[in-house]
Amino acid sequence: MNSSIIRYILGQILKVEAILMLLPCVVALIYQESEGFMYLWVVIVALVCGILMTIKKPKNNVFYLKEGCVTTALSWILISIVGAFPFWLTKEIPSYTDALFETISGFTTTGASILSDVEALSKASTFWRCFTHWIGGMGVLVFMLAIVPLSGGSNMNLMRAESPGPSVGKLVPKLKHTARLLYVIYFSITVLQVVFLVIGKMPVFDAMATSFATAGTGGFGIKNDSMVSYSPYIQWVVTIFMILCGINFNAYYYILLRDFKKAFSMEEVKGYLLIIVAATAIIFINIVDTAAGILDALRHSAFQVASIITTTGFATVDFDLWTGTARVVIVLLMFIGACAGSTGGGIKVSRIMVLFKTIFKEFHSYIHPKSIKKVKFEGKTVEHEVIRSINVYFITMMILFTASVFLVAIEGRDMETTFTAVATTINNIGPGLEGVGPTQNFASFTCFSKYVFMFDMLAGRLELFPLLILFHPVIWKDMFVQRRAEKRLRKKNI
Amino acid sequence: MNSSIIRYILGQILKVEAILMLLPCVVALIYQESEGFMYLWVVIVALVCGILMTIKKPKNNVFYLKEGCVTTALSWILISIVGAFPFWLTKEIPSYTDALFETISGFTTTGASILSDVEALSKASTFWRCFTHWIGGMGVLVFMLAIVPLSGGSNMNLMRAESPGPSVGKLVPKLKHTARLLYVIYFSITVLQVVFLVIGKMPVFDAMATSFATAGTGGFGIKNDSMVSYSPYIQWVVTIFMILCGINFNAYYYILLRDFKKAFSMEEVKGYLLIIVAATAIIFINIVDTAAGILDALRHSAFQVASIITTTGFATVDFDLWTGTARVVIVLLMFIGACAGSTGGGIKVSRIMVLFKTIFKEFHSYIHPKSIKKVKFEGKTVEHEVIRSINVYFITMMILFTASVFLVAIEGRDMETTFTAVATTINNIGPGLEGVGPTQNFASFTCFSKYVFMFDMLAGRLELFPLLILFHPVIWKDMFVQRRAEKRLRKKNI
Repeated sequence: MNSSIIRYILGQILKVEAILMLLPCVVALIYQESEGFMYLWVVIVALVCGILMTIKKPKNNVFYLKEGCVTTALSWILISIVGAFPFWLTKEIPSYTDALFETISGFTTTGASILSDVEALSKASTFWRCFTHWIGGMGVLVFMLAIVPLSGGSNMNLMRAESPGPSVGKLVPKLKHTARLLYVIYFSITVLQVVFLVIGKMPVFDAMATSFATAGTGGFGIKNDSMVSYSPYIQWVVTIFMILCGINFNAYYYILLRDFKKAFSMEEVKGYLLIIVAATAIIFINIVDTAAGILDALRHSAFQVASIITTTGFATVDFDLWTGTARVVIVLLMFIGACAGSTGGGIKVSRIMVLFKTIFKEFHSYIHPKSIKKVKFEGKTVEHEVIRSINVYFITMMILFTASVFLVAIEGRDMETTFTAVATTINNIGPGLEGVGPTQNFASFTCFSKYVFMFDMLAGRLELFPLLILFHPVIWKDMFVQRRAEKRLRKKNI
Repeated sequence: MNSSIIRYILGQILKVEAILMLLPCVVALIYQESEGFMYLWVVIVALVCGILMTIKKPKNNVFYLKEGCVTTALSWILISIVGAFPFWLTKEIPSYTDALFETISGFTTTGASILSDVEALSKASTFWRCFTHWIGGMGVLVFMLAIVPLSGGSNMNLMRAESPGPSVGKLVPKLKHTARLLYVIYFSITVLQVVFLVIGKMPVFDAMATSFATAGTGGFGIKNDSMVSYSPYIQWVVTIFMILCGINFNAYYYILLRDFKKAFSMEEVKGYLLIIVAATAIIFINIVDTAAGILDALRHSAFQVASIITTTGFATVDFDLWTGTARVVIVLLMFIGACAGSTGGGIKVSRIMVLFKTIFKEFHSYIHPKSIKKVKFEGKTVEHEVIRSINVYFITMMILFTASVFLVAIEGRDMETTFTAVATTINNIGPGLEGVGPTQNFASFTCFSKYVFMFDMLAGRLELFPLLILFHPVIWKDMFVQRRAEKRLRKKNI
């Protein structure tokens, strides 16, 4: 285990976070809020720690998938711990556990909240809360790769551990350029949404916060009623941008290259859009009788479907009051999730599609036992290793889900609350049903359950293995044994 | 597709069922019940059809896995359709859909009932209802293989399609002898239980019916309150025999061979017993405060755990009234199920264990990407093909489960009822929670939902693929295309 490079990268991440946290300081300055000083304190401490951790460059730049996973997991834990301090220091969230919950929920783009009155927050905290979504959406390590010059060619392992989806492809040969390109696309979409929202007469600050939460598919609202009170125009704009941010970003890259044919023939994107249309239609049929009109029913069904499948978690209506079928569709969408390579969570459409194809292949093998059929996706044969890892991912997901439901059930809440609370955190969505429905929040859970949810949110965002691997004893043994060996070596040399 | 051998085997199955249905006729004769005539009618019609179907022996005895699956699925559908007639003709179950539900629930050893007053049934129907569990437990095709001389060496494909578990091993070289041996063990366990129950002062008829339902891990009770009113002695006897019938029958074979070391070192059996002890302990802790005493709490927790993990479905207490954790444990046990090669349903302990081992292997591959580690189970390396098929099984199970929940949700019941009703039928258990709890039944569901449940029960019992394959168009194309080709050939020869 190359622990010095892990220390170095964590230091870089800390510096990046400190710089990003200057933005809420600026907001506080503009709105003349005293909360800004707390943010400034955290910035200074984080910056000093970051500089101290990066003074000594690591001698050995090589690191493997193992180090990539550990670094990614520790980075996310570190930025959450640091990012939670301002909420706690400003006393806007009195308990540090709650502040940590809110921050992890932000960075992992979950959007589950323990706050019952978000409108009472200072502008600086409102900004930081939504901005965590934006940072977490594309990934903080991807951001670091885009701006910090890191030598050594194995940085791909960092990106692989952080990016969602079964396999990560570099868009351009150089990883640094891929990371920059992704952030350019991401930034452009966000700016575009701000413009459209401002046209709909939303104040600029609100438009920015909403766009951060939409682009990162997070779902922290700036109003207590989420999106209910906004105009139909704004709701439609948010619907469309949620759907856009759930699309595999490779599609946008192809569009940039003017390779429209490739962009519009992506199997995953087609599947994703098809699911949205089908789910909207089913819910529309189910709620059209009780809605205020056909257009109203269409808007509400499209918004909620887009919000849940992209794992954003905004709501324009209390879908907890819907009928059985509509509610089941919502729960199904929670697990499907957005496209791989997007900012959304969940299992991902591509994984679901490959799983279905694997099942059809199995049928085929029953009928023609001797023929060899390969699973194809996006025009390419899916390698055996990828199928295996998707299977394992799915099964691990189910086991982690089951274990979490079991742990949260100790509280003795009703099963629907427990079940959807875990589903909504592990898939990084936000609201669930019943006790965690769109009009409720997570404040009333016990501390223990909250830590279970935090773990699930991180596990869901990092796609399980990078986080779970932290619990493997070999990792820690490696880390300390190697350090001791290094020390011994140094002593000898002296 | 060799459709003539399918026809021939279906005919044999029909004859076997007709002969087995003579037993309720005998019961009716003893108790002087007029319902016996209806059973006799069905016996005669089934026998005639069976004889007509088997007059012409198939020329070609070879059949592949494809034919094995189709034959198995069609056999189970056929025996259910025929087996349901007496319930309907005697007007004890007025609707044929309900009678079919009850019969499929019997043969698949589910034990979910649409009857609210089982004590009102005639003795003949009570016997037949519980006897379907016994037939379905070990499998009707296995029974046929044990008694009907079938030439051709590919009958293994029949057994493979019907027997539960990831891989089927022949105990002895000849399949016929394996089938006989299994039935001898099965019969002995049943007789043993009858003896123990009669010692506990249960009437012989009741003891037989209860033993059929226990040995087949079915769960149809002969009392309206399932097992609540029986003495603690009888409840303990049933607990122990449920656990015994959930053990892989290979263990009993090893015991017969006096190879005790092999019998007691079976990983799956150890895992199964460990889960039972752990689950009992957790539930015990959760219910000990509200139970009448420590012994009472122990008996109830052990009985319910044994009943659910073996997928029997008896109840000595309304576990729907238990606390959150205990209820979640019950739902978890529903999915785990018994050992492979037993009469129980569910995913099976061996599959779960291999899934966990696969996940640990995945961790290992993150840490040592270049090392090759094999998954070992029962002292042998698990072949790649077996792991793949377990993965696909698990995923197909989840997808079928989700689709069924979706279809049943159209009724608009509460989510817990919908969810556990599907879980309990697809895993062949019987009772669920809330609207399908131990004190409730399935009568109030719509016809459509009942057919979904019937499908799930059959799919669960046949472990998905043999039933699902019936929906593959190739199967039907094959069947008809080949028949037409044969006809053409015959015409030419004339």
